[in-house]
This record gives sequence, structure tokens and C-alpha cells, in this order.
Amino acid sequence: MIADKMKALVKNSSAIRAMFEEGKIMAAKYGAENVYDFSLGNPNVPAPVQVKEAIIEEAEKEDPIVLHGYMSNAGYEDVRQAVAESINKKFDTAFSAKNIIMTVGAAGGLNVILKTLLNPGDEVIAIAPYFGEYNSYVSNFDGKLVVVSPNTETFQPNLTELEEKLTARTKAVIVNSPNNPTGVIYSEETIQAMAEILRKKQKEFGTDIYLISDEPYRELAYDGAEVPYLTKYYENAIIGYSFSKSLSLPGERIGYLVIPGEAADSEDVISAAGTATRILGYVNAPSLMQKAVAKCLDAQADVPYYDRNREDLYNGLKEMGFECIKPQGAFYLFMKSPVADEKVFCEAAKKQHILIVPGSSFACPGYVRIAYCVAHETIINSMPGFKALAEEFLG
Amino acid sequence: MIADKMKALVKNSSAIRAMFEEGKIMAAKYGAENVYDFSLGNPNVPAPVQVKEAIIEEAEKEDPIVLHGYMSNAGYEDVRQAVAESINKKFDTAFSAKNIIMTVGAAGGLNVILKTLLNPGDEVIAIAPYFGEYNSYVSNFDGKLVVVSPNTETFQPNLTELEEKLTARTKAVIVNSPNNPTGVIYSEETIQAMAEILRKKQKEFGTDIYLISDEPYRELAYDGAEVPYLTKYYENAIIGYSFSKSLSLPGERIGYLVIPGEAADSEDVISAAGTATRILGYVNAPSLMQKAVAKCLDAQADVPYYDRNREDLYNGLKEMGFECIKPQGAFYLFMKSPVADEKVFCEAAKKQHILIVPGSSFACPGYVRIAYCVAHETIINSMPGFKALAEEFLG
Repeated sequence: MIADKMKALVKNSSAIRAMFEEGKIMAAKYGAENVYDFSLGNPNVPAPVQVKEAIIEEAEKEDPIVLHGYMSNAGYEDVRQAVAESINKKFDTAFSAKNIIMTVGAAGGLNVILKTLLNPGDEVIAIAPYFGEYNSYVSNFDGKLVVVSPNTETFQPNLTELEEKLTARTKAVIVNSPNNPTGVIYSEETIQAMAEILRKKQKEFGTDIYLISDEPYRELAYDGAEVPYLTKYYENAIIGYSFSKSLSLPGERIGYLVIPGEAADSEDVISAAGTATRILGYVNAPSLMQKAVAKCLDAQADVPYYDRNREDLYNGLKEMGFECIKPQGAFYLFMKSPVADEKVFCEAAKKQHILIVPGSSFACPGYVRIAYCVAHETIINSMPGFKALAEEFLG
Repeated sequence: MIADKMKALVKNSSAIRAMFEEGKIMAAKYGAENVYDFSLGNPNVPAPVQVKEAIIEEAEKEDPIVLHGYMSNAGYEDVRQAVAESINKKFDTAFSAKNIIMTVGAAGGLNVILKTLLNPGDEVIAIAPYFGEYNSYVSNFDGKLVVVSPNTETFQPNLTELEEKLTARTKAVIVNSPNNPTGVIYSEETIQAMAEILRKKQKEFGTDIYLISDEPYRELAYDGAEVPYLTKYYENAIIGYSFSKSLSLPGERIGYLVIPGEAADSEDVISAAGTATRILGYVNAPSLMQKAVAKCLDAQADVPYYDRNREDLYNGLKEMGFECIKPQGAFYLFMKSPVADEKVFCEAAKKQHILIVPGSSFACPGYVRIAYCVAHETIINSMPGFKALAEEFLG
């Protein structure tokens, strides 16, 4: 018999992943070119050529005992230093190797920091719409996820509600900008206002409230939009980064945490995060991939590729009469479902071989997420299907 | 403030890892050649050349979108099928892709299966001496680790005590053979007797008791010793394998679980293990490394290299008068401490620049573990230090 907790988790398993699995079955049945799979944030842009070069160079030149061996649980010292310097150069910060913990992707990083911080019953706030996996990550450590409801006007966080929901048990707030699923970038004003609220509440409760920034989409920003670097606005900010999207390496599971020296109990948090990396069974981030990404810290994500998808998808859908938020970043378009129960719409889309994810997976029912990290022809070829849906639902 | 649970974990953090970190500091201070670091199971044998060839071939020829992309949480279908077929060929079993879950090393695999199975308060039995990380892995899911005390005669499991400690709350028994830290291989008689006890107790309690076999050292067996494949002896056996030691890839975090169709609730366990892989933040085993190991399933571990270390270390220490168990497998030698408190002996060894791990880290005080997966010259050059210890402690 499997664990009781797992029974519910398997049953309510990720709608996104279920769709991804279904997409593979449909592709086998109808031909991959006849299925428009917008379900998963799995980049269709190949990794930059530097990644391939770095992998081959490391395999050919590095001592295999070093390249494939154990290092400190937090990662290779030289890799961590290179990451710190790269952040410092980009954001005018002052990190060093000790502030960086290499992680098994952002998912690994979030689990490490939550394991590090949470006592059972501690509250973690997420701002809807949010990546549904946060539910599981917080539950892994018996924390309580508290949801700030979506502001469907702008999809900037509802700060009044955030303030109301902060309590003496709030250990952390998770933010994700550019946002999955909306593509919205939290503005500098938002971040400044949020930091002020957090500081006020810390003072009121005599607690530390960590602001955990989940930022796999940092580099994917359009029209020159700026994504504020949170450690510059709030002392207790912790960054969870992933190379999954920027370097198109989601399967490799490589990312890092940044734990600034200014954060409360910084040394304890850093030390515990290394221990948590080991105890959770990650042991360390994959070694060859650590060395490879350290050589690709200046590689560019193919933003123009996603931008073309964004424009063509957004304009196409708008023209048909769908109500969409124009994404400022990431590679997701959040569209209002033309029927209140967006699951009905997703099922109808499936009949057009279009796979999209219900907004309820992101605590925002009534919307659907369209992941446009696909081939450009998928966008183009899906248009007749969306057109048929428009005719069916918008009349 | 970090979590209360983490405070204790950081404080009592792995003595092995603490020693490894200390070894790096000592190496910087005294020169690597003057420090004899026997602390960690970090192979000094390079990965077989096939690994390098496979990495380069995959990087050069495979579509990067496939090579570095998301796949099912359980791993690439073709990799899982190749692993299943390789096991079938070696052990005359009948597994297919569906029985295999690719994992982030054996540590990842153990966490996945424990997350899958354990309700809070469920008991998991470990047989001392055992790898101390099992404490953390079981505690991650609020299980209760129950320890069978060591049989210091043969270091085969104490089966009488095992039988006594099995209760209606026992969800699993973890075994590890070839054993870390003793190097002992559990004999076929032991396994058969253990399977009978487990079957009897399952019937008595009306429960399922899973036998989890943690086997990173499977291929490291000397003098032609056979390591029984547990699924052939017991229906509810689940295998946790790692390529860390056989292919010298500990930093890469690559392994797999085998969940046989005969195991109780097999389909639920398989499905939940896939979900657990995602939820625990692994998401999937590193993708390039999955593809690489699939091409190296017939590569040979360099057993003769370790065997020479084993012979020279064992014979050297015996000659000095130390009491040792001759390892049948793995790359650890378990030596009786010449003083009751083996930590005193480990501290004295450190003065000789010899780093070894107290047996209390393995729930077997009075012994020390010497990891001989080191350069052969480390063995040779450490002998004067061990000789000095012999003179100090054995007179």
C-alpha cells in the first residue's frame, strides 16, 4: 500500500504533466505535426552552442575523477564563485561563492530552502496565479500554503490581501516573475511596496519573513523590460534560479540558490541549505552540468525566437476575439476562458488537438495557460483549431 | 531562523562529510600527497572510457531538445527499456521499461520509494552497521527507523533480532550488500532466511513488508563472490541502484529503482514513485546522463584496481596487529578500534594525516571505516602512519 498522502497526490497529480503524457500518446496516434502541445514549459529552442562545446570540452579535458566525482554538497567552489561573479556583474551585487548553493534545478532549490526554513505548520504565501507545484513543495515539509487571490486586472500581486494574510507564522513568501502562468513581470513599484509591507510585518511580529524569488524565466523578458533583482530591495530575499529555460536545459536539473549575507541568520541558512541538499537525497547538483553552465554564464537565451511566437500567438488569438494578457516575459500566455469552467474549454481544445492547461492548476480558474515555447509552425498550424474554438465559444 | 529539525541535523551532520571537508582543508595545508583521506566513498578510479565516448557522442549527435529536455518523470522510455533488458540478461529476470524509474542516484531513489510508501510513524528497519544517511531519509517522511544491532561475529544480519523487531507497523526493511561500511556480502542463505521471516511476518500481520535493496556496490565483488539479486528471492523486493560506484559517477547523480510487477500494489507503487520523483523536486534524473549510462550498461567497474588496494590495506593492517574484517565487496574496510571509544582513535589517526570515519556513524561503535577507493600510493604511503598508530595503541 502506498502512503495515504501519495494517494491524493497521485490522484490530483499535475494536470500539466498529465497533459504532457497525453500529448505524447496523441502525437503517436495522429502524428506529432498534427498535435499542438502547449502543455509544458519544455523549450523547443535548442541549448546555445556554447553548452555543447562546454560539455565536450569538459569531457575531453577535465580529469574524470574531478568531473564526475563528489564535491561539497553545495557545489564546486570554482563554479559557485563564477556564478557569484556573474550575478555581481549583471546586478551590481557583492556575492561570493559562499552565497551560492548549486541545486538540482529550481525545483531542487525551492525544496532545499523550504526544508531549511520550515517548521511544521509554518505558513508560506503564494500569490495566485502561481505554479501549482508550490503546493507539493510546501507540503513536503508540512508547511501550510496560504494563497493570495489573483488580481485579474493587472496580474500584479494583490498587496492589500498579501498584507492581510501575513501572520506571525508566515515564514516565507514565494514570488515568481516573470510569472508562470501569466507572463507578467512584477514591476519595481510592486517589489518596493511588497518589501515595505514585509518589513513592517516583520517588525510588528518580531519575526523574519523570507521572500523567495523563483526565477527560471529571469532572462526571458520582452521589449527591453527590466526584471528587478530582489536582493537589492529586501534584505531577506533568497533567489532560486534555474538554467532550464535560459539555456534550454530542463532535463539536466541544474540551478542555484542565492542566500545573501544580509539575510537573517544567513550563515545558519547557508550551512543548513548545504545539509538539506544532502539529506533530501540530491547530494549535489549534477557535476558535469555544474562545470558546463559555469562556462555558459554569458550565453544568451534565444529571446527573439520566443518573442515571435508571443506576437503571433497573442495577435492571432486577439484577432479571433479571445481575451488575453500580453506576456511581458516567460513563454506563457494566459487567456481568459470563454466559458466560466475553463476545463470545458480545455476539453474542447483537445478535440482540435490543442493541449492547454486549465487555470485552476494555478489557483486561477476561468483562465487557460498556453505555453508557447514551441516550434513557430506549431503556433501557425494551431490557428485553424483556435479559430474553430472561437466560432464554437464566441459565436 | 532555520527549522528546528535542521538545527539538530546540521549539528549532527554527517561525520563522513565533515571529514571530507576537513580533508580538503588539510590537503591545502600539508599538500594532497601528505594527507591520507579514507573518509568518503568517492572513487579514485576514472569513469570507464565508454562514459566519455557516450557523453561526447550524445552531445554531438542527439537533438539537444531531446537530450536536454523534459521527459516523463520516470525517465526516457528507451533508457528504462535498455536498463530493464540489461538486468534481465544479467539476472534472468523479466522486467520491462515500466518497472524502472530513473533516479537522482541511489539517494534519490531511496527518498522516492520512502516518500511513496511511508505514512508518518511507519517503521523502517535498518541492519547495523548501516549507512547513516538512512536516518535522514526515513526522517524526511516522518518514519521511524528501527535498528537491528550488529552481529560483530560475521556482520551478516542478526536474523533473530530482525524477526523480533518486525511489527505490524513495519513498512520496509533496508539492506545494503555488498555492505557499507563492512564490505560483507549477504549470503544466499541469509537472503533466503530473511525472505522466509518476512513472508511469515507478512502473513502474521496481514501486511506487506517491502525489502529495499540499496545496491550501489553490486558490481564491486571480489574473488568471484556472487551477490544475490533480491527480486528472485522475495516478491516485495525493490532495488535501488546507482552508477556512482560502478561507473565512478558519484557527482552525476544517476541511478534507478526497480519495482517488480510481483510486488504488492505494484502499479500504484510505480505510479506514485513517478509522482514522488516530481514532487520531491528531482523532476527527473539528469537527462544527458540517463542517455550516457544507457550506452554503458555493459561497461566494467575496475574491480582489480580496488582489489589491489583491498589486499594491500588488509594485509598491511593485519600484519601490524589490527583486527579487520576482510571485505568481500564494496571498497570499505571495517576495522576494530584498538580503544573502545573509536572517536579517540580517529582523532589520533588525524594526527597522522589519516582520515577515517568512526563506526558510530554506522550504528556500530568500536569500529572504524576506511574507504579504500583511493590511489594505490595513498594506501602505501599511509602505512607508516598506521604503523605509528599500532605502536601507540597496540604497544
